[in-house]
Amino acid sequence: MTTMSMYQASVPRFIHMLGNLHAILSKAQAHAKAKGIDELAFTGFRLYPDMLPLTNQIMIATDTAKGCAARLAGVTAPVYEDNEKTFAELGERIAKTLVYLQSFKPEQIDGSEEREVVLKRRTGEERLQGMPYLLNSALPNFFFHVTTAYAILRHNGVEIGKKDYLGNA
Amino acid sequence: MTTMSMYQASVPRFIHMLGNLHAILSKAQAHAKAKGIDELAFTGFRLYPDMLPLTNQIMIATDTAKGCAARLAGVTAPVYEDNEKTFAELGERIAKTLVYLQSFKPEQIDGSEEREVVLKRRTGEERLQGMPYLLNSALPNFFFHVTTAYAILRHNGVEIGKKDYLGNA
Repeated sequence: MTTMSMYQASVPRFIHMLGNLHAILSKAQAHAKAKGIDELAFTGFRLYPDMLPLTNQIMIATDTAKGCAARLAGVTAPVYEDNEKTFAELGERIAKTLVYLQSFKPEQIDGSEEREVVLKRRTGEERLQGMPYLLNSALPNFFFHVTTAYAILRHNGVEIGKKDYLGNA
Repeated sequence: MTTMSMYQASVPRFIHMLGNLHAILSKAQAHAKAKGIDELAFTGFRLYPDMLPLTNQIMIATDTAKGCAARLAGVTAPVYEDNEKTFAELGERIAKTLVYLQSFKPEQIDGSEEREVVLKRRTGEERLQGMPYLLNSALPNFFFHVTTAYAILRHNGVEIGKKDYLGNA
């Protein structure tokens, strides 16, 4: 019997979607190369001047995933330098995040529904319980940045589709 | 004690995000009016010629939410006509979806982890268990279309931010 749990709703989902995102970036890299376009024109692209570029969408998606797993388990996530510029560097960031996520065992995260998590905001610390944090903050944020990365690449003509976003369910 | 469950991970999340989306569309409507821009220029906008316009992003987001709740509960969701064009019409579609979602009781959906759900695809029927359907298909799809709607409006200069997307967690 498979049962819904805090682990089931978090770590395997991040792993699945980040794997899809890694494959999407590989397609974008191949597209840029085939068309002879500087790949920084893609990785630095913003959908609006005060929106974040593709690089930051990938940084925040990976930060949200590793930060969520760590907070729910009550451990400290590794800090990355946030200096990725190329598709290869962004792919490496996703790959190391995947290795980190795969290190979590279900029993570290299951039962964390009411565990206190502390978020550091620009406006100060915010304290939430595990379940509302996962469902109302971490997951919506994670999907937001993965989808925005996809939208930036689609808007710039990379031939990807919904199947690349969803992967094999 | 709050416990993660199939209901907790689905219906309340759809209600929360669709409420945020409704407020975002109201801001977009006010923006179009203040600038004297035909609102169909926003609702018909696509981020790329073979992507779906804003109207369809809202249609699919609401369809995914009502279809997910119905499938997990083993009932049949209402079918909408898909003829919305204006912000007011799209807002009404979200409002009636919210009323429908609010009609579900947790006990209709809890325990549906292994319940068979049938998806009608262009390529035929796909059968999935409730939990993988919710976590790998319904939620990623739902967030995809809500985020794409947001991205279309941001790309067209509507002054909304991440706080509008997340709402009050």
